[in-house]
Amino acid sequence: MQTSQRPRVLIIGGGFGGLEAAKALAKAPVDITLVDKTNHHLFQPLLYQVATAGLAAPAIAAPIRSLFRQQNNLTTLLSEVTNIDARENRVLLSDGSTLMYDHLVVAAGATHSYFGHDEWAVHAPGLKTLEDAFEIRRRLLFAFESAEKEPDPEKRKDWLTLCVIGAGPTGVEMAGAFAEIARQTLIGEFRRINPRDARILLIEGGPRVLQAMPETLSAKALSQLQALGVEVRLNAIVTSIDAQGLQVRGPAPAGVLGTVDYTIASKCVVWAAGVAASPLGANIAQNTDCSLDRAGRVLVNPDMSVPGFAQISVIGDLAAVFTHVPGKAPVPVPGVSPGAKQMGHLAAANILKRIQGQPTQAFRYADYGNLATIGHNSAVVDLSTPFGPLRFSQRLAWWFWLLAHIYFLIGFRNRLVVLMDWAMAYSSFSRNARVVAGTLYKKEHVGES
Amino acid sequence: MQTSQRPRVLIIGGGFGGLEAAKALAKAPVDITLVDKTNHHLFQPLLYQVATAGLAAPAIAAPIRSLFRQQNNLTTLLSEVTNIDARENRVLLSDGSTLMYDHLVVAAGATHSYFGHDEWAVHAPGLKTLEDAFEIRRRLLFAFESAEKEPDPEKRKDWLTLCVIGAGPTGVEMAGAFAEIARQTLIGEFRRINPRDARILLIEGGPRVLQAMPETLSAKALSQLQALGVEVRLNAIVTSIDAQGLQVRGPAPAGVLGTVDYTIASKCVVWAAGVAASPLGANIAQNTDCSLDRAGRVLVNPDMSVPGFAQISVIGDLAAVFTHVPGKAPVPVPGVSPGAKQMGHLAAANILKRIQGQPTQAFRYADYGNLATIGHNSAVVDLSTPFGPLRFSQRLAWWFWLLAHIYFLIGFRNRLVVLMDWAMAYSSFSRNARVVAGTLYKKEHVGES
Repeated sequence: MQTSQRPRVLIIGGGFGGLEAAKALAKAPVDITLVDKTNHHLFQPLLYQVATAGLAAPAIAAPIRSLFRQQNNLTTLLSEVTNIDARENRVLLSDGSTLMYDHLVVAAGATHSYFGHDEWAVHAPGLKTLEDAFEIRRRLLFAFESAEKEPDPEKRKDWLTLCVIGAGPTGVEMAGAFAEIARQTLIGEFRRINPRDARILLIEGGPRVLQAMPETLSAKALSQLQALGVEVRLNAIVTSIDAQGLQVRGPAPAGVLGTVDYTIASKCVVWAAGVAASPLGANIAQNTDCSLDRAGRVLVNPDMSVPGFAQISVIGDLAAVFTHVPGKAPVPVPGVSPGAKQMGHLAAANILKRIQGQPTQAFRYADYGNLATIGHNSAVVDLSTPFGPLRFSQRLAWWFWLLAHIYFLIGFRNRLVVLMDWAMAYSSFSRNARVVAGTLYKKEHVGES
Repeated sequence: MQTSQRPRVLIIGGGFGGLEAAKALAKAPVDITLVDKTNHHLFQPLLYQVATAGLAAPAIAAPIRSLFRQQNNLTTLLSEVTNIDARENRVLLSDGSTLMYDHLVVAAGATHSYFGHDEWAVHAPGLKTLEDAFEIRRRLLFAFESAEKEPDPEKRKDWLTLCVIGAGPTGVEMAGAFAEIARQTLIGEFRRINPRDARILLIEGGPRVLQAMPETLSAKALSQLQALGVEVRLNAIVTSIDAQGLQVRGPAPAGVLGTVDYTIASKCVVWAAGVAASPLGANIAQNTDCSLDRAGRVLVNPDMSVPGFAQISVIGDLAAVFTHVPGKAPVPVPGVSPGAKQMGHLAAANILKRIQGQPTQAFRYADYGNLATIGHNSAVVDLSTPFGPLRFSQRLAWWFWLLAHIYFLIGFRNRLVVLMDWAMAYSSFSRNARVVAGTLYKKEHVGES
């Protein structure tokens, strides 16, 4: 039990931002409570590897509680915050109890957005949680299983048409992994179908893949995807999704002007197109009268606090923040893990400054660049260096990506296991986590209900 | 596509028995179809490690399809058999299609039995599938999480009372692992509770633990369990289970004669007491008029075939079979993986004999002994050697158990990963798979529906 004479810091969310804020306060004279609705911190940049059967879940997830075993000023609670009572400095938990705070850091992250079409979710799962990853793994692997059983060649094609919607980093990674599974991993294992017959479509509403990257790297990523056998459809808008597949509005075939509407029959569709802030954003707006951006993120002050509520900071994917470099126009901070970590660090520092009665600091994003992987030996890297941008792709970029991700698998005892799983997968194209709990039938029934 | 001039062998179930039968026919001039309702072979002796967060699921499960990649005479199908039409030599699958066979091997295994109290299942999950293991992992880890949040000391005790019903190998392994988690793994991670305060009860209806073992080893296992802090209740019959805990009828306290009824308040109960044959046993009995034993297993001929249906063999946990040693009384074969493998091998050999018009062979069980683990450095081993039984316990037995299990993790690329996970867990008592997909609330809601 802790005495409550010390300021109480409440952190909502154990993602990159929340974790960093908590660690930055490790030696501070405060009592921290970290609330998360799951029991683990998730290394989200590798979640697509769990979804595509390359890694087991525990390889990229660690109990939050065990990460903070040594930090005696921190209590971990498995719970969900349902309301932030900003004027009373307390939050309501889903079990009906309340928690008081002196300083609050809201790092509740983001979820997928179906742009007002929530009915698409059941046909096209997104990728944010381990449950999402298991569901995508199940649909992907069972699509090939169902094709093997299907006597009708037309229906078999529907099972073997795999669609990824959205060509940001996650969509590109998934499409690349889908292609490798079809062209490499599964080869020789089926008797009636040829997994190579699978079509992998990557459907993007914008004019290029990886739009956060420079155009030259987008072009390289596109050609690497095509080399893997992914059909990339650019400027193609998904207008409807159901159990049979997609409706798309996109460019007409070569030689024809204008756009056409067409159908893609597909039994395995993954959503990587839209991100929306956690519903806690709307809750904060309601309770503090702050503003939200179009994605539902809280428009915070430069020091990460909510306007009018200095004791509340919002960080990570839930915050809309601009980086302020003297003499330059403010630039929006991208929703990537280095950004979340830096915000977490600043929020913690500003809590200490407030406790000490000092003025707070404004956020300044240190941009180290951007990278995305497509498949084995296939990636693009755009580094920001003091000497200007450094851009490279393919094999060298892939090794850079791999080493960077293993390095950043923070605080995990199983870093070595991940390395080994990858070493094995890399040498053989096998995938070690091609395991689906449950049967085809039970799960389909659940999906229907 | 295969020509169908060759005899068609259908194998139902990809456990130890089915796998062995399929492998034994690798070079035979037959066309094999192996049907399983999951996509993986499960190394069931280590399933309790997945349930107790020691191993990730993919470490002990491998896609059946990939195990048979090289075996060109075999087709794997993910499907569930719902009826065996023995007189027409065909089976019905759950998608409504049928499969014809010339020879059928039924290796559908066993499930848990609640002795007519199926309503207990929701309060006390058993351990047969990966889904079961995830559910037990969730209940175990979330019991400590819920205790940490619970302000009422009495209710907190209920969360920290963990019950295992049945002291066979699985129950002993789970109780031992529960004790190590409470006394070692979680130490220092909670701020309001002390995980050491958890009580672990192992409740057994019979007079000793590990009743398949010699009495001396049962006694050693009992004292090793007690050394780990497990309260073992022998001759204690569970008469009721609900959301609040158990009703038990057992020996009165020391000094008092007779039995007493008492309640154990517990929020985490695991069932390891009863095993029932797969429902396909009853289906076979209905379609062939064969007899079942009390556990629902098919009473097969000495050559593993169903009486009157030479083309159908039943093996593994679904078969009630006796080992016939000339000059001795028949001995029932225990439901362990070496037994299943030996039956699978014989069933395959007898199929070839039938094809060649030769007489079939009777099953003769080669008993290599019995072993069970309790915790780190804690196990009992009873080996059958040509020179008589060899019995040992504790540290040596544990190493023997460990090496034997790693050796038998058949055909898995990830044997090394298991070894490493264990090496790490052994040196530190940490557990690498303490990850629960989903939140406390969502899952509880599902449990209620």
